[in-house]
Amino acid sequence: MRTIGVVTSGGDAPGMNAAIRAIVRVAQAHGIAVIGFERGWEGLIYDNVMSLTPRSVSGIIQQGGTILRTSRNKEFMTDEGMQKASVTLANNKVDGLIVIGGDGSFRAAHEFSKKTDTRIAGIPATIDNDVYGTDETIGFDTAVNTGVTEIDKIRDTATSLDRVFIVEVMGRTRGFLAAMIGLTVGAEIILVPEVKFQPEEVCDTILKNSAAGKKSGIIVAAEGIGDTHALAKEIQEHTRIETRLSVLGYAQRGGHPTARSRFLASVFGKAAVEFLADGKENLIAALQHGKVTGISFDESCCKSKELDLRLLKLARELSK
Amino acid sequence: MRTIGVVTSGGDAPGMNAAIRAIVRVAQAHGIAVIGFERGWEGLIYDNVMSLTPRSVSGIIQQGGTILRTSRNKEFMTDEGMQKASVTLANNKVDGLIVIGGDGSFRAAHEFSKKTDTRIAGIPATIDNDVYGTDETIGFDTAVNTGVTEIDKIRDTATSLDRVFIVEVMGRTRGFLAAMIGLTVGAEIILVPEVKFQPEEVCDTILKNSAAGKKSGIIVAAEGIGDTHALAKEIQEHTRIETRLSVLGYAQRGGHPTARSRFLASVFGKAAVEFLADGKENLIAALQHGKVTGISFDESCCKSKELDLRLLKLARELSK
Amino acid sequence: MRTIGVVTSGGDAPGMNAAIRAIVRVAQAHGIAVIGFERGWEGLIYDNVMSLTPRSVSGIIQQGGTILRTSRNKEFMTDEGMQKASVTLANNKVDGLIVIGGDGSFRAAHEFSKKTDTRIAGIPATIDNDVYGTDETIGFDTAVNTGVTEIDKIRDTATSLDRVFIVEVMGRTRGFLAAMIGLTVGAEIILVPEVKFQPEEVCDTILKNSAAGKKSGIIVAAEGIGDTHALAKEIQEHTRIETRLSVLGYAQRGGHPTARSRFLASVFGKAAVEFLADGKENLIAALQHGKVTGISFDESCCKSKELDLRLLKLARELSK
Amino acid sequence: MRTIGVVTSGGDAPGMNAAIRAIVRVAQAHGIAVIGFERGWEGLIYDNVMSLTPRSVSGIIQQGGTILRTSRNKEFMTDEGMQKASVTLANNKVDGLIVIGGDGSFRAAHEFSKKTDTRIAGIPATIDNDVYGTDETIGFDTAVNTGVTEIDKIRDTATSLDRVFIVEVMGRTRGFLAAMIGLTVGAEIILVPEVKFQPEEVCDTILKNSAAGKKSGIIVAAEGIGDTHALAKEIQEHTRIETRLSVLGYAQRGGHPTARSRFLASVFGKAAVEFLADGKENLIAALQHGKVTGISFDESCCKSKELDLRLLKLARELSK
Repeated sequence: MRTIGVVTSGGDAPGMNAAIRAIVRVAQAHGIAVIGFERGWEGLIYDNVMSLTPRSVSGIIQQGGTILRTSRNKEFMTDEGMQKASVTLANNKVDGLIVIGGDGSFRAAHEFSKKTDTRIAGIPATIDNDVYGTDETIGFDTAVNTGVTEIDKIRDTATSLDRVFIVEVMGRTRGFLAAMIGLTVGAEIILVPEVKFQPEEVCDTILKNSAAGKKSGIIVAAEGIGDTHALAKEIQEHTRIETRLSVLGYAQRGGHPTARSRFLASVFGKAAVEFLADGKENLIAALQHGKVTGISFDESCCKSKELDLRLLKLARELSK
Repeated sequence: MRTIGVVTSGGDAPGMNAAIRAIVRVAQAHGIAVIGFERGWEGLIYDNVMSLTPRSVSGIIQQGGTILRTSRNKEFMTDEGMQKASVTLANNKVDGLIVIGGDGSFRAAHEFSKKTDTRIAGIPATIDNDVYGTDETIGFDTAVNTGVTEIDKIRDTATSLDRVFIVEVMGRTRGFLAAMIGLTVGAEIILVPEVKFQPEEVCDTILKNSAAGKKSGIIVAAEGIGDTHALAKEIQEHTRIETRLSVLGYAQRGGHPTARSRFLASVFGKAAVEFLADGKENLIAALQHGKVTGISFDESCCKSKELDLRLLKLARELSK
Repeated sequence: MRTIGVVTSGGDAPGMNAAIRAIVRVAQAHGIAVIGFERGWEGLIYDNVMSLTPRSVSGIIQQGGTILRTSRNKEFMTDEGMQKASVTLANNKVDGLIVIGGDGSFRAAHEFSKKTDTRIAGIPATIDNDVYGTDETIGFDTAVNTGVTEIDKIRDTATSLDRVFIVEVMGRTRGFLAAMIGLTVGAEIILVPEVKFQPEEVCDTILKNSAAGKKSGIIVAAEGIGDTHALAKEIQEHTRIETRLSVLGYAQRGGHPTARSRFLASVFGKAAVEFLADGKENLIAALQHGKVTGISFDESCCKSKELDLRLLKLARELSK
Repeated sequence: MRTIGVVTSGGDAPGMNAAIRAIVRVAQAHGIAVIGFERGWEGLIYDNVMSLTPRSVSGIIQQGGTILRTSRNKEFMTDEGMQKASVTLANNKVDGLIVIGGDGSFRAAHEFSKKTDTRIAGIPATIDNDVYGTDETIGFDTAVNTGVTEIDKIRDTATSLDRVFIVEVMGRTRGFLAAMIGLTVGAEIILVPEVKFQPEEVCDTILKNSAAGKKSGIIVAAEGIGDTHALAKEIQEHTRIETRLSVLGYAQRGGHPTARSRFLASVFGKAAVEFLADGKENLIAALQHGKVTGISFDESCCKSKELDLRLLKLARELSK
């Protein structure tokens, strides 16, 4: 292994820069050079590269976003796109490629691995935590804490005004963020796409809580459950309790990574370099039962990670 | 002056609790007792009171929201409502009333002052900063900083993805929050209700910045400018640059007050008690040119505070 | 099981309140009443109790410290003290006691378990993370993040002034906090009590870094390594590079718990109640390989938790 | 005016970068180029310059520290040093110099102005707020809020353990930071160098508070009052209440500037450029009674800014 290429793909996640730093410095210890491709797969197609040295990744461990930038690129998914990318890798003498991203990025990497001689490894980085095979992804802990901090503030107003707030959090089609945020802010109700619900049940719970003296309430809803505007309206109409919606937006993606996101970035960065240096390929660095290991693109891309429904049950028990 | 009543009215603002604490402890130094009316004017109508002692306001200086809670109450604005409130004040032997709130609360207090013998004073507390006669209100500095912190995070994603973000901030019909947040996050464009704009100009600026190498951008828009969803759509269609909307919601109202919001709460709390103790009435504690003074309900309620347009000009100059 | 008593003992840790909340509400679901003993073991000796109901633990999930307060009490460790405590438990019909604290608290609980009929369970809560048998304690993640946030700020000055900073963090006799903080702030050097070091090696590393262009540097030192004042002086004298010491003090113990500390508090609270309800005793709730389980007082108190030295090695590799 | 030079001198303060950004972009609007001197006066002596363009100051508004770096340099205060600096300015065709720093920096600038033809202006940036002629300096508001946030956390432990904490804050020989932090955290006692105190009085106040039921307490002490270690020891011995010292260190200098520090940086940056462009010299940008104005080096350097003792009186009244 002489040269490793790095690409960040899909949405950005806090800790991606810490992962880039880890890759570069661990590679250096193995005598491997590192270059970065800019703006996701686009950089591979159009040969936009930047040199990454131990000094050039100095001072980025705490920065949100990604210094390599990222984009959502459709051209890469075509035969022609992958062809161009292969040429770029060959031209740059890249014999190992590390893809930092989420499950969409890994599916693309999986396809690409069939068409290139370059060995590929993955590092799971997405605030959504929806990558099969790893207990946690880089950025998840940061996004959870950003959500918790925001909702702690909203509760001030909820309590002061005896209001119900629906807080919509990110997570795309999944409820990992909503479940963990909901549990740790003490939400009265958590709504996730994985569990069907009827608005009437939500209203019933609110009315029961109100009757028991809990006049304000927080509902944490995953963006994947559908129209939260309509839900807020419906709740207010049925319960006659003032109900407001607050959508936690893109701030959830940014900010300084938490210690845990930086820690995962560091150990995953090391693992990915070592996979490649050891001659392994098509592996995603993963955390399983507190240990760093690898999961194949093949397995990770085919399977869907399960949401632990016991979290929701516990949250319900604890909010009474 | 034997007993002062305190009420928080309208929306909550960070620092209201610090003001309550200041009132209680300054009053104590003057040998004056304090009681609190709960849930805004409702507490005056229905005689819901709580005793406020130097010990009971311990540990609240840093809490967001208001321990007295607040509400928006229409009954108070009727003759009958004010009648009941007068009776409540008499029953509780309240000879001075301090109203903590925004301009809506002061208009109500102004009306009420004509119908009661109790002397009334006001303390301006609203994140919107739209009270005429004071350079700053309690909570404004906190809401500005909350907005700035959020947008600093959003910029991570904007830069990583070369995107334009419209960030809608609070402020009701006014642009005080948007102007100060926009200036201090280095927004490329600031949109406030006080200044008419054409979407085409916004698009032009974005395209010019893009041509000059500024590929990402932040537009800070006051909620009072109208439909930001439509604006985001229009910008994306015209500029072909990915444009996202993020609405900074109710978290802006909550959270620990900043030092400055606590400072204003402390000096305004002291001023309001002293107004009443000195036999003055219908005065709102105010900051003018760095000094604490008073402005009459009469004057404050009739006039509209001007937004300093030089802030916008400076922001424009600094974002180039 | 009719009544569970709860006591927080030793130093406070962020998340203790979230654990109290979890205990009370899970107990409620099992039909078990809960009372709290105030100020640690002192409350058991002097029968200072407070009722804990699902409503009285409302709004504490995000509060640092402990509503039960805590103290370091020597009397409890005497036969007479334990005798009094037994009587208190009997008088209050407490048939299960949950001790929230660190290893000192568990050693005391272990002794006490031999002298009382009340079943005892433990919940590990200490920022030091030095409880054998659990991968993590409540409060550790919060204290790590507090340290990281502070050091991110100090790096601004270190970089601006080309200075070396020694930052002393907590951890008592152990290096868990220093190792994780050091790794995640990108410290150039980490000093822990578990690894002997010579000041000369530290100076050598600093001089090597300086020669390689790294003019500023952060040394994270555990409080357990000894006199950091003297070390700072020695480094400055030997390297001729300005060296400053910053001691991260008690703020590390406080503050809102992170999501992870609240999560652990919630699952440990549930586990401890269930241990007692299921007739088990002398078990500490523990996290092992990502799963919640129990470890006996006996085992936990006899053994010393090992610091994973690979963290230090990785930190060294990543700071080059 | 063709070219303005910028130098940051003395200790760093959050908001210095925002001031550099403002200078560069306002200068650009006036058709003036800007260069930066690195590492304070050292850069002027050794001709270490960096070009500063509107693009190169992009993304620094929120960064702590100073991209120009700073140092404490004694050589500049010699005739020879100033001679060299004059030559550097001439060589670089700098016809205006802006010095960003505190009163020490302005005294040096004042001396230097007598020996160079280059017009000089100053921007007050120091967390200590001890520059005569301006109500506030860049960085002060940030350092106050950093202190307040830390002490809010320490209070968790103080309350949980019924302890007294002395918290030493920065401020060099002055008490501006201590007074504002003390007032806004609700400190029971504030100690500043401007007011003599006897340790016995401090003990008396603590004992009185304790007798009145206030078992914990926060003393905010300016670093300028002397040996806080000894004071903590003395208090504990006399009052028999556990007393701990926490020294808020260099983190107070760093971190993202608050909105207010960025605002001051923006308006001061604009003012300084305009002074020079208008042919004025030897003026420091200043905030007086809420308005931006200028104060001469001559006046500012000769006079000592007074601490408003009413703040201390108010803090005392409010902590009862």
